[in-house]
Amino acid sequence: MLVNGVVSAVVAAADRGFSYGDGLFESIRFVGERAPLWERHMQRLADSCHRLQLPLPDTAQLLREARQVSESMAHAVVRIAWTRGVGERGYSPPTVATPTRVVAAFPPPPMDAAAHAHGVRTRMCTLRLAEQPQLAGMKHLNRLEQVLARAEWSDPAIAEGLLCDGDGRLVSATMANLFAVIDGELATPSLQRCGVAGVARAEILACAAGARERDMRLPDLHRASEVFLSSSVRGVVPVQSLDGWRWTPGPVTRQWQGHWRQLGFAMEHAA
Amino acid sequence: MLVNGVVSAVVAAADRGFSYGDGLFESIRFVGERAPLWERHMQRLADSCHRLQLPLPDTAQLLREARQVSESMAHAVVRIAWTRGVGERGYSPPTVATPTRVVAAFPPPPMDAAAHAHGVRTRMCTLRLAEQPQLAGMKHLNRLEQVLARAEWSDPAIAEGLLCDGDGRLVSATMANLFAVIDGELATPSLQRCGVAGVARAEILACAAGARERDMRLPDLHRASEVFLSSSVRGVVPVQSLDGWRWTPGPVTRQWQGHWRQLGFAMEHAA
Repeated sequence: MLVNGVVSAVVAAADRGFSYGDGLFESIRFVGERAPLWERHMQRLADSCHRLQLPLPDTAQLLREARQVSESMAHAVVRIAWTRGVGERGYSPPTVATPTRVVAAFPPPPMDAAAHAHGVRTRMCTLRLAEQPQLAGMKHLNRLEQVLARAEWSDPAIAEGLLCDGDGRLVSATMANLFAVIDGELATPSLQRCGVAGVARAEILACAAGARERDMRLPDLHRASEVFLSSSVRGVVPVQSLDGWRWTPGPVTRQWQGHWRQLGFAMEHAA
Repeated sequence: MLVNGVVSAVVAAADRGFSYGDGLFESIRFVGERAPLWERHMQRLADSCHRLQLPLPDTAQLLREARQVSESMAHAVVRIAWTRGVGERGYSPPTVATPTRVVAAFPPPPMDAAAHAHGVRTRMCTLRLAEQPQLAGMKHLNRLEQVLARAEWSDPAIAEGLLCDGDGRLVSATMANLFAVIDGELATPSLQRCGVAGVARAEILACAAGARERDMRLPDLHRASEVFLSSSVRGVVPVQSLDGWRWTPGPVTRQWQGHWRQLGFAMEHAA
Protein backbone atom coordinates (compact mmCIF):
# COMPACT_ATOMS: atom_id res chain seq x y z
CA MET A 1 0.00 0.00 0.00
CA LEU A 2 1.23 3.49 -0.83
CA VAL A 3 0.17 6.55 1.14
CA ASN A 4 1.19 9.73 -0.68
CA GLY A 5 3.67 7.67 -2.65
CA VAL A 6 5.37 6.09 0.35
CA VAL A 7 4.98 2.47 1.43
CA SER A 8 2.76 2.72 4.49
CA ALA A 9 -0.37 1.25 6.03
CA VAL A 10 -1.49 4.32 7.99
CA VAL A 11 -3.02 7.75 7.49
CA ALA A 12 -3.17 10.74 9.83
CA ALA A 13 -6.00 10.45 12.35
CA ALA A 14 -6.61 14.15 11.58
CA ASP A 15 -7.21 13.37 7.88
CA ARG A 16 -10.58 14.70 6.78
CA GLY A 17 -11.21 11.36 5.11
CA PHE A 18 -11.23 9.80 8.58
CA SER A 19 -12.94 12.71 10.37
CA TYR A 20 -15.77 13.37 7.92
CA GLY A 21 -15.50 10.93 5.01
CA ASP A 22 -14.40 14.01 3.08
CA GLY A 23 -13.03 12.33 -0.02
CA LEU A 24 -13.53 9.90 -2.88
CA PHE A 25 -12.45 6.42 -3.88
CA GLU A 26 -12.20 4.20 -6.94
CA SER A 27 -11.98 0.41 -7.06
CA ILE A 28 -10.27 -0.48 -10.32
CA ARG A 29 -9.88 -3.91 -11.85
CA PHE A 30 -6.39 -4.63 -13.20
CA VAL A 31 -5.43 -7.49 -15.50
CA GLY A 32 -1.68 -7.51 -15.24
CA GLU A 33 -0.67 -3.90 -15.73
CA ARG A 34 -3.76 -3.08 -17.78
CA ALA A 35 -6.91 -1.52 -16.39
CA PRO A 36 -9.36 -1.51 -19.31
CA LEU A 37 -11.70 1.02 -17.68
CA TRP A 38 -8.94 3.27 -16.30
CA GLU A 39 -9.96 6.34 -18.29
CA ARG A 40 -13.56 6.12 -17.07
CA HIS A 41 -12.40 5.80 -13.46
CA MET A 42 -10.21 8.87 -13.86
CA GLN A 43 -13.06 10.77 -15.52
CA ARG A 44 -15.44 10.03 -12.64
CA LEU A 45 -12.76 10.96 -10.12
CA ALA A 46 -12.13 14.28 -11.87
CA ASP A 47 -15.86 15.06 -12.17
CA SER A 48 -16.34 14.34 -8.48
CA CYS A 49 -13.31 16.46 -7.52
CA HIS A 50 -14.93 19.39 -9.30
CA ARG A 51 -18.19 18.81 -7.47
CA LEU A 52 -16.50 18.53 -4.05
CA GLN A 53 -14.02 21.32 -4.83
CA LEU A 54 -11.11 18.94 -4.32
CA PRO A 55 -7.81 19.43 -6.16
CA LEU A 56 -7.42 17.14 -9.16
CA PRO A 57 -5.06 14.18 -8.84
CA ASP A 58 -2.10 13.60 -11.15
CA THR A 59 -3.54 10.62 -13.02
CA ALA A 60 -0.18 9.54 -14.47
CA GLN A 61 1.16 9.34 -10.92
CA LEU A 62 -1.90 7.35 -9.83
CA LEU A 63 -1.37 4.90 -12.69
CA ARG A 64 2.31 4.45 -11.82
CA GLU A 65 1.42 3.80 -8.20
CA ALA A 66 -1.47 1.47 -9.10
CA ARG A 67 0.91 -0.61 -11.22
CA GLN A 68 3.52 -0.56 -8.49
CA VAL A 69 1.19 -1.95 -5.80
CA SER A 70 -0.27 -4.61 -8.12
CA GLU A 71 2.86 -5.60 -10.05
CA SER A 72 3.16 -9.09 -8.61
CA MET A 73 -0.51 -9.90 -9.24
CA ALA A 74 -2.02 -11.35 -12.42
CA HIS A 75 -5.43 -10.00 -11.36
CA ALA A 76 -5.97 -7.22 -8.87
CA VAL A 77 -8.43 -4.67 -7.61
CA VAL A 78 -6.63 -1.41 -6.94
CA ARG A 79 -8.38 0.88 -4.49
CA ILE A 80 -7.50 4.55 -4.74
CA ALA A 81 -8.66 6.91 -2.01
CA TRP A 82 -8.36 10.66 -2.58
CA THR A 83 -9.27 12.79 0.42
CA ARG A 84 -9.12 16.48 1.35
CA GLY A 85 -6.16 15.63 3.58
CA VAL A 86 -5.34 16.97 7.01
CA GLY A 87 -7.21 20.14 7.79
CA GLU A 88 -8.13 22.47 10.57
CA ARG A 89 -10.84 21.19 12.86
CA GLY A 90 -14.37 21.98 11.76
CA TYR A 91 -16.32 21.29 8.59
CA SER A 92 -14.98 24.32 6.72
CA PRO A 93 -12.66 22.99 4.01
CA PRO A 94 -9.14 24.44 4.04
CA THR A 95 -8.63 27.17 1.45
CA VAL A 96 -5.75 25.20 -0.02
CA ALA A 97 -6.20 21.48 0.51
CA THR A 98 -3.30 19.03 0.36
CA PRO A 99 -5.06 15.80 -0.57
CA THR A 100 -4.13 12.42 0.79
CA ARG A 101 -3.87 9.59 -1.72
CA VAL A 102 -3.91 5.94 -0.76
CA VAL A 103 -3.25 3.33 -3.43
CA ALA A 104 -3.63 -0.30 -2.43
CA ALA A 105 -4.00 -3.60 -4.30
CA PHE A 106 -6.17 -6.53 -3.28
CA PRO A 107 -6.90 -9.89 -4.85
CA PRO A 108 -10.20 -9.77 -6.73
CA PRO A 109 -13.21 -11.30 -4.98
CA PRO A 110 -13.52 -15.03 -5.70
CA MET A 111 -15.35 -15.34 -9.00
CA ASP A 112 -18.04 -17.97 -9.14
CA ALA A 113 -18.37 -19.34 -12.68
CA ALA A 114 -21.89 -20.52 -11.83
CA ALA A 115 -22.84 -16.96 -10.91
CA HIS A 116 -21.65 -15.69 -14.28
CA ALA A 117 -23.42 -18.53 -16.10
CA HIS A 118 -26.71 -18.79 -14.20
CA GLY A 119 -26.93 -15.59 -12.17
CA VAL A 120 -27.01 -14.66 -8.50
CA ARG A 121 -29.75 -14.52 -5.92
CA THR A 122 -30.66 -11.08 -4.58
CA ARG A 123 -33.02 -9.55 -2.05
CA MET A 124 -34.72 -6.22 -1.55
CA CYS A 125 -33.16 -4.17 1.23
CA THR A 126 -35.34 -2.47 3.80
CA LEU A 127 -33.14 0.63 3.94
CA ARG A 128 -34.20 3.40 1.57
CA LEU A 129 -31.43 5.53 0.11
CA ALA A 130 -31.66 9.21 1.00
CA GLU A 131 -32.04 11.68 -1.84
CA GLN A 132 -29.13 14.10 -2.02
CA PRO A 133 -28.60 15.48 -5.54
CA GLN A 134 -25.41 17.24 -4.44
CA LEU A 135 -23.78 13.89 -3.65
CA ALA A 136 -25.63 11.63 -6.09
CA GLY A 137 -23.49 9.68 -8.54
CA MET A 138 -20.19 10.13 -6.71
CA LYS A 139 -18.15 7.34 -5.16
CA HIS A 140 -17.46 9.35 -2.03
CA LEU A 141 -16.36 8.07 1.36
CA ASN A 142 -19.75 8.53 3.09
CA ARG A 143 -20.95 4.96 2.77
CA LEU A 144 -22.87 4.24 5.97
CA GLU A 145 -26.05 3.59 4.02
CA GLN A 146 -24.34 0.80 2.12
CA VAL A 147 -22.90 -0.61 5.34
CA LEU A 148 -26.35 -0.68 6.95
CA ALA A 149 -27.97 -2.16 3.84
CA ARG A 150 -25.31 -4.87 3.54
CA ALA A 151 -25.77 -5.70 7.23
CA GLU A 152 -29.41 -6.61 6.58
CA TRP A 153 -28.53 -10.16 5.55
CA SER A 154 -25.82 -12.71 6.30
CA ASP A 155 -26.97 -15.66 4.16
CA PRO A 156 -23.97 -16.28 1.84
CA ALA A 157 -26.36 -17.64 -0.80
CA ILE A 158 -27.67 -14.09 -1.32
CA ALA A 159 -25.10 -12.20 -3.37
CA GLU A 160 -26.61 -8.75 -3.37
CA GLY A 161 -29.34 -6.48 -2.05
CA LEU A 162 -31.30 -4.06 -4.22
CA LEU A 163 -32.03 -0.57 -2.95
CA CYS A 164 -34.85 1.89 -3.54
CA ASP A 165 -35.04 5.56 -2.66
CA GLY A 166 -37.63 6.90 -0.24
CA ASP A 167 -40.16 7.18 -3.02
CA GLY A 168 -39.84 3.53 -4.06
CA ARG A 169 -37.70 4.10 -7.15
CA LEU A 170 -35.05 1.43 -7.68
CA VAL A 171 -31.51 2.82 -7.50
CA SER A 172 -28.89 0.06 -7.52
CA ALA A 173 -27.51 -2.88 -5.56
CA THR A 174 -25.31 -2.23 -2.52
CA MET A 175 -22.08 -2.47 -4.57
CA ALA A 176 -23.21 -2.70 -8.19
CA ASN A 177 -25.50 -0.95 -10.64
CA LEU A 178 -28.69 -2.43 -11.94
CA PHE A 179 -29.77 -3.06 -15.54
CA ALA A 180 -33.00 -4.56 -16.83
CA VAL A 181 -34.45 -5.29 -20.25
CA ILE A 182 -37.96 -3.86 -20.07
CA ASP A 183 -40.26 -3.92 -23.11
CA GLY A 184 -37.24 -4.92 -25.17
CA GLU A 185 -35.21 -1.91 -24.06
CA LEU A 186 -32.06 -1.94 -21.91
CA ALA A 187 -32.52 0.43 -19.00
CA THR A 188 -30.83 1.40 -15.75
CA PRO A 189 -32.14 3.61 -12.93
CA SER A 190 -31.34 7.30 -13.24
CA LEU A 191 -29.04 8.48 -10.45
CA GLN A 192 -29.84 12.16 -10.14
CA ARG A 193 -31.01 11.86 -6.55
CA CYS A 194 -28.89 9.10 -5.02
CA GLY A 195 -26.70 6.14 -5.83
CA VAL A 196 -23.22 5.69 -7.27
CA ALA A 197 -22.78 6.10 -11.03
CA GLY A 198 -20.57 3.07 -11.62
CA VAL A 199 -17.84 2.98 -14.19
CA ALA A 200 -19.11 -0.34 -15.60
CA ARG A 201 -22.53 1.30 -15.92
CA ALA A 202 -20.95 4.22 -17.78
CA GLU A 203 -19.21 1.81 -20.16
CA ILE A 204 -22.52 0.09 -20.97
CA LEU A 205 -24.41 3.37 -21.41
CA ALA A 206 -21.66 4.69 -23.70
CA CYS A 207 -21.49 1.56 -25.86
CA ALA A 208 -25.11 0.43 -25.98
CA ALA A 209 -27.20 1.69 -28.85
CA GLY A 210 -30.57 2.19 -27.19
CA ALA A 211 -29.81 1.91 -23.46
CA ARG A 212 -31.28 4.62 -21.34
CA GLU A 213 -31.55 5.92 -17.80
CA ARG A 214 -35.07 6.04 -16.42
CA ASP A 215 -37.14 5.87 -13.27
CA MET A 216 -37.67 2.20 -12.48
CA ARG A 217 -39.89 0.61 -9.86
CA LEU A 218 -40.41 -2.95 -8.67
CA PRO A 219 -43.35 -3.64 -11.05
CA ASP A 220 -41.09 -2.59 -13.95
CA LEU A 221 -38.49 -5.09 -12.80
CA HIS A 222 -41.11 -7.82 -12.43
CA ARG A 223 -41.96 -7.57 -16.09
CA ALA A 224 -38.31 -7.34 -17.23
CA SER A 225 -37.11 -10.14 -19.50
CA GLU A 226 -33.55 -9.91 -18.17
CA VAL A 227 -31.94 -8.35 -15.12
CA PHE A 228 -28.21 -8.00 -14.48
CA LEU A 229 -25.73 -6.18 -12.26
CA SER A 230 -22.72 -4.21 -13.45
CA SER A 231 -19.59 -3.62 -11.42
CA SER A 232 -16.07 -2.61 -12.32
CA VAL A 233 -14.86 -5.26 -9.88
CA ARG A 234 -17.23 -8.12 -10.76
CA GLY A 235 -18.19 -7.35 -14.35
CA VAL A 236 -21.63 -8.24 -15.72
CA VAL A 237 -23.50 -10.68 -13.46
CA PRO A 238 -27.01 -11.95 -14.25
CA VAL A 239 -29.66 -11.69 -11.55
CA GLN A 240 -31.34 -15.05 -11.14
CA SER A 241 -33.82 -14.05 -8.48
CA LEU A 242 -35.04 -11.17 -6.33
CA ASP A 243 -36.77 -12.62 -3.29
CA GLY A 244 -39.50 -14.71 -4.97
CA TRP A 245 -39.08 -13.40 -8.55
CA ARG A 246 -36.95 -15.25 -11.08
CA TRP A 247 -35.25 -14.46 -14.36
CA THR A 248 -33.10 -16.40 -16.81
CA PRO A 249 -29.98 -14.80 -18.31
CA GLY A 250 -30.86 -13.75 -21.86
CA PRO A 251 -29.15 -12.49 -24.98
CA VAL A 252 -28.62 -8.91 -23.78
CA THR A 253 -26.88 -10.09 -20.63
CA ARG A 254 -24.72 -12.46 -22.69
CA GLN A 255 -23.88 -9.66 -25.10
CA TRP A 256 -22.52 -7.48 -22.28
CA GLN A 257 -20.64 -10.36 -20.73
CA GLY A 258 -19.06 -10.78 -24.19
CA HIS A 259 -18.24 -7.08 -24.24
CA TRP A 260 -16.46 -7.49 -20.91
CA ARG A 261 -14.38 -10.38 -22.27
CA GLN A 262 -13.48 -8.25 -25.28
CA LEU A 263 -12.28 -5.50 -22.96
CA GLY A 264 -9.83 -8.10 -21.70
CA PHE A 265 -11.36 -8.94 -18.35
CA ALA A 266 -12.14 -12.63 -18.89
CA MET A 267 -14.00 -12.58 -15.58
CA GLU A 268 -14.67 -16.30 -15.64
CA HIS A 269 -10.94 -17.02 -15.30
CA ALA A 270 -10.30 -14.46 -12.63
CA ALA A 271 -10.87 -16.59 -9.54
CA MET B 1 -3.67 12.09 20.82
CA LEU B 2 -4.34 8.49 21.81
CA VAL B 3 -5.22 5.78 19.29
CA ASN B 4 -6.46 2.68 21.05
CA GLY B 5 -4.81 3.93 24.21
CA VAL B 6 -1.38 4.50 22.68
CA VAL B 7 0.14 7.91 21.91
CA SER B 8 -0.13 8.15 18.14
CA ALA B 9 -1.29 10.45 15.38
CA VAL B 10 -2.21 7.77 12.81
CA VAL B 11 -4.86 5.15 12.12
CA ALA B 12 -4.81 2.18 9.75
CA ALA B 13 -5.62 3.19 6.18
CA ALA B 14 -7.79 0.04 6.15
CA ASP B 15 -9.89 1.33 9.05
CA ARG B 16 -13.57 1.38 8.14
CA GLY B 17 -13.75 4.87 9.56
CA PHE B 18 -11.45 5.98 6.76
CA SER B 19 -12.88 3.68 4.06
CA TYR B 20 -16.59 4.28 4.64
CA GLY B 21 -17.02 6.76 7.47
CA ASP B 22 -18.21 3.70 9.40
CA GLY B 23 -18.15 5.11 12.90
CA LEU B 24 -19.17 7.83 15.33
CA PHE B 25 -17.64 10.79 17.09
CA GLU B 26 -18.25 13.08 20.04
CA SER B 27 -16.82 16.56 20.66
CA ILE B 28 -16.86 17.13 24.39
CA ARG B 29 -16.15 20.35 26.24
CA PHE B 30 -13.88 19.94 29.26
CA VAL B 31 -13.31 22.52 31.99
CA GLY B 32 -10.22 21.20 33.70
CA GLU B 33 -10.95 17.53 34.28
CA ARG B 34 -14.70 18.05 34.37
CA ALA B 35 -17.00 17.55 31.37
CA PRO B 36 -20.43 18.68 32.62
CA LEU B 37 -22.30 16.96 29.77
CA TRP B 38 -20.19 13.78 29.79
CA GLU B 39 -23.09 11.46 30.65
CA ARG B 40 -25.20 12.80 27.80
CA HIS B 41 -22.32 12.32 25.34
CA MET B 42 -21.87 8.74 26.49
CA GLN B 43 -25.62 8.13 26.27
CA ARG B 44 -25.73 9.35 22.67
CA LEU B 45 -22.66 7.30 21.79
CA ALA B 46 -24.22 4.16 23.28
CA ASP B 47 -27.57 4.76 21.55
CA SER B 48 -25.80 5.23 18.21
CA CYS B 49 -23.66 2.10 18.75
CA HIS B 50 -26.85 0.11 19.16
CA ARG B 51 -28.28 1.59 15.95
CA LEU B 52 -25.09 0.93 13.94
CA GLN B 53 -24.52 -2.44 15.60
CA LEU B 54 -21.15 -1.30 16.91
CA PRO B 55 -19.68 -2.70 20.13
CA LEU B 56 -20.13 -0.40 23.12
CA PRO B 57 -17.09 1.49 24.36
CA ASP B 58 -15.76 1.25 27.90
CA THR B 59 -16.83 4.71 29.05
CA ALA B 60 -14.55 4.68 32.12
CA GLN B 61 -11.62 4.07 29.80
CA LEU B 62 -12.77 6.88 27.50
CA LEU B 63 -12.97 9.27 30.45
CA ARG B 64 -9.48 8.32 31.64
CA GLU B 65 -8.10 8.88 28.16
CA ALA B 66 -10.01 12.13 27.66
CA ARG B 67 -8.52 13.46 30.92
CA GLN B 68 -5.08 12.24 29.93
CA VAL B 69 -5.03 14.08 26.58
CA SER B 70 -6.46 17.30 28.08
CA GLU B 71 -4.67 17.32 31.44
CA SER B 72 -2.48 20.34 30.71
CA MET B 73 -5.40 22.44 29.44
CA ALA B 74 -7.72 24.64 31.51
CA HIS B 75 -10.30 24.45 28.72
CA ALA B 76 -10.41 21.80 26.03
CA VAL B 77 -12.58 20.12 23.44
CA VAL B 78 -11.95 16.40 23.47
CA ARG B 79 -12.85 14.62 20.27
CA ILE B 80 -13.56 10.92 20.56
CA ALA B 81 -13.88 8.84 17.38
CA TRP B 82 -15.24 5.31 17.66
CA THR B 83 -15.14 3.32 14.42
CA ARG B 84 -15.83 -0.25 13.34
CA GLY B 85 -12.06 -0.71 13.04
CA VAL B 86 -10.10 -2.59 10.43
CA GLY B 87 -12.26 -4.97 8.47
CA GLU B 88 -12.38 -7.11 5.40
CA ARG B 89 -12.87 -5.19 2.20
CA GLY B 90 -16.49 -4.58 1.24
CA TYR B 91 -19.39 -2.97 3.00
CA SER B 92 -20.35 -6.07 4.97
CA PRO B 93 -19.47 -5.36 8.60
CA PRO B 94 -17.20 -7.93 10.25
CA THR B 95 -19.07 -10.41 12.45
CA VAL B 96 -16.89 -9.42 15.38
CA ALA B 97 -15.69 -5.84 15.06
CA THR B 98 -12.65 -4.56 16.93
CA PRO B 99 -13.41 -0.83 17.14
CA THR B 100 -10.79 1.85 16.80
CA ARG B 101 -10.91 4.66 19.35
CA VAL B 102 -9.18 7.97 18.87
CA VAL B 103 -9.12 10.45 21.75
CA ALA B 104 -7.65 13.87 21.06
CA ALA B 105 -7.76 17.26 22.80
CA PHE B 106 -7.92 20.64 21.10
CA PRO B 107 -8.15 24.19 22.41
CA PRO B 108 -11.76 25.41 22.30
CA PRO B 109 -12.69 27.71 19.44
CA PRO B 110 -12.00 31.35 20.27
CA MET B 111 -15.04 32.64 22.15
CA ASP B 112 -16.32 36.03 21.15
CA ALA B 113 -17.93 37.77 24.13
CA ALA B 114 -19.85 39.99 21.71
CA ALA B 115 -21.36 36.93 20.07
CA HIS B 116 -22.59 35.67 23.43
CA ALA B 117 -23.94 39.10 24.35
CA HIS B 118 -25.46 40.28 21.07
CA GLY B 119 -25.69 37.19 18.90
CA VAL B 120 -24.19 35.97 15.66
CA ARG B 121 -25.07 36.54 12.03
CA THR B 122 -26.26 33.50 10.10
CA ARG B 123 -27.34 32.64 6.57
CA MET B 124 -29.57 30.07 4.92
CA CYS B 125 -27.62 27.34 3.14
CA THR B 126 -28.60 26.25 -0.34
CA LEU B 127 -27.86 22.60 0.37
CA ARG B 128 -30.86 20.62 1.57
CA LEU B 129 -30.17 17.81 4.03
CA ALA B 130 -31.16 14.37 2.77
CA GLU B 131 -33.78 12.49 4.75
CA GLN B 132 -32.44 9.22 6.16
CA PRO B 133 -34.30 8.12 9.28
CA GLN B 134 -31.84 5.24 9.82
CA LEU B 135 -29.00 7.73 10.32
CA ALA B 136 -30.92 10.74 11.67
CA GLY B 137 -29.83 12.05 15.03
CA MET B 138 -26.46 10.30 15.15
CA LYS B 139 -23.09 12.05 15.15
CA HIS B 140 -21.63 9.61 12.65
CA LEU B 141 -18.58 10.09 10.45
CA ASN B 142 -20.51 10.67 7.18
CA ARG B 143 -20.38 14.45 7.19
CA LEU B 144 -19.98 15.46 3.55
CA GLU B 145 -23.27 17.36 3.64
CA GLN B 146 -21.95 19.56 6.43
CA VAL B 147 -18.67 20.07 4.56
CA LEU B 148 -20.53 21.17 1.42
CA ALA B 149 -22.89 23.41 3.38
CA ARG B 150 -20.02 25.06 5.27
CA ALA B 151 -18.19 25.63 1.97
CA GLU B 152 -21.09 27.79 0.75
CA TRP B 153 -19.70 30.90 2.45
CA SER B 154 -16.31 32.27 3.45
CA ASP B 155 -17.30 35.64 5.00
CA PRO B 156 -15.93 35.41 8.57
CA ALA B 157 -18.69 37.78 9.73
CA ILE B 158 -21.20 34.97 9.12
CA ALA B 159 -20.89 32.53 12.00
CA GLU B 160 -23.26 29.82 10.90
CA GLY B 161 -25.51 28.52 8.13
CA LEU B 162 -28.99 27.14 8.74
CA LEU B 163 -30.12 24.00 6.93
CA CYS B 164 -33.48 22.75 5.73
CA ASP B 165 -34.45 19.30 4.52
CA GLY B 166 -35.69 18.71 0.98
CA ASP B 167 -39.21 19.60 2.03
CA GLY B 168 -38.24 23.00 3.45
CA ARG B 169 -38.36 22.04 7.12
CA LEU B 170 -35.62 23.65 9.20
CA VAL B 171 -33.22 21.11 10.73
CA SER B 172 -30.23 22.79 12.37
CA ALA B 173 -27.12 24.86 11.70
CA THR B 174 -24.05 23.18 10.18
CA MET B 175 -22.48 22.52 13.60
CA ALA B 176 -25.16 23.47 16.13
CA ASN B 177 -28.81 22.86 16.88
CA LEU B 178 -31.48 25.50 16.50
CA PHE B 179 -33.96 26.79 19.06
CA ALA B 180 -36.65 29.44 18.66
CA VAL B 181 -39.29 30.98 20.89
CA ILE B 182 -42.46 30.83 18.79
CA ASP B 183 -45.79 31.98 20.22
CA GLY B 184 -44.11 32.09 23.61
CA GLU B 185 -43.03 28.46 23.41
CA LEU B 186 -39.43 27.20 23.20
CA ALA B 187 -39.12 24.84 20.24
CA THR B 188 -36.44 23.02 18.24
CA PRO B 189 -36.78 21.14 14.96
CA SER B 190 -37.60 17.45 15.27
CA LEU B 191 -34.77 15.28 13.96
CA GLN B 192 -36.51 12.08 12.91
CA ARG B 193 -35.47 12.42 9.26
CA CYS B 194 -32.05 14.09 9.33
CA GLY B 195 -29.73 16.19 11.46
CA VAL B 196 -27.59 15.55 14.51
CA ALA B 197 -29.32 15.39 17.89
CA GLY B 198 -26.85 17.50 19.81
CA VAL B 199 -25.99 16.90 23.44
CA ALA B 200 -26.57 20.59 24.31
CA ARG B 201 -30.00 20.27 22.66
CA ALA B 202 -30.71 17.17 24.77
CA GLU B 203 -29.73 19.07 27.93
CA ILE B 204 -32.16 21.88 27.09
CA LEU B 205 -35.01 19.53 26.19
CA ALA B 206 -34.47 17.58 29.40
CA CYS B 207 -34.35 20.64 31.66
CA ALA B 208 -36.87 22.99 30.01
CA ALA B 209 -40.43 22.83 31.26
CA GLY B 210 -42.37 23.36 28.05
CA ALA B 211 -39.78 22.97 25.29
CA ARG B 212 -40.81 20.74 22.45
CA GLU B 213 -39.64 19.26 19.16
CA ARG B 214 -41.72 20.24 16.18
CA ASP B 215 -41.66 20.79 12.45
CA MET B 216 -40.39 24.31 11.86
CA ARG B 217 -40.24 26.32 8.66
CA LEU B 218 -38.82 29.69 7.74
CA PRO B 219 -42.10 31.59 8.33
CA ASP B 220 -42.21 30.11 11.85
CA LEU B 221 -38.69 31.43 12.45
CA HIS B 222 -39.63 34.84 11.07
CA ARG B 223 -42.27 35.29 13.72
CA ALA B 224 -40.06 33.92 16.53
CA SER B 225 -39.33 36.34 19.36
CA GLU B 226 -35.92 34.77 20.03
CA VAL B 227 -33.63 32.44 18.11
CA PHE B 228 -30.51 30.76 19.44
CA LEU B 229 -28.04 27.99 18.65
CA SER B 230 -26.96 25.23 21.02
CA SER B 231 -23.68 23.39 20.85
CA SER B 232 -21.72 21.31 23.31
CA VAL B 233 -18.60 23.14 22.12
CA ARG B 234 -19.93 26.71 21.95
CA GLY B 235 -22.80 26.67 24.42
CA VAL B 236 -25.89 28.84 23.91
CA VAL B 237 -25.35 31.54 21.28
CA PRO B 238 -28.08 34.02 20.27
CA VAL B 239 -28.86 34.41 16.58
CA GLN B 240 -28.79 38.10 15.70
CA SER B 241 -29.71 37.75 12.07
CA LEU B 242 -30.57 35.27 9.33
CA ASP B 243 -29.84 36.93 5.99
CA GLY B 244 -32.14 40.01 6.22
CA TRP B 245 -34.09 38.98 9.34
CA ARG B 246 -33.11 40.21 12.79
CA TRP B 247 -33.72 39.21 16.38
CA THR B 248 -32.63 40.53 19.74
CA PRO B 249 -31.51 38.11 22.47
CA GLY B 250 -34.38 37.79 24.93
CA PRO B 251 -35.10 36.32 28.35
CA VAL B 252 -35.30 32.69 27.25
CA THR B 253 -31.89 32.86 25.59
CA ARG B 254 -30.44 34.53 28.69
CA GLN B 255 -32.01 31.88 30.90
CA TRP B 256 -30.23 29.09 28.99
CA GLN B 257 -26.96 30.97 28.92
CA GLY B 258 -27.34 31.16 32.70
CA HIS B 259 -28.02 27.43 32.81
CA TRP B 260 -24.75 26.87 30.93
CA ARG B 261 -22.84 28.96 33.44
CA GLN B 262 -24.41 26.98 36.26
CA LEU B 263 -23.24 23.77 34.64
CA GLY B 264 -19.75 25.20 35.09
CA PHE B 265 -18.93 26.20 31.54
CA ALA B 266 -18.57 29.96 32.01
CA MET B 267 -18.34 30.25 28.22
CA GLU B 268 -17.59 33.95 28.32
CA HIS B 269 -14.23 33.28 29.99
CA ALA B 270 -13.26 30.43 27.74
CA ALA B 271 -11.51 32.37 25.00
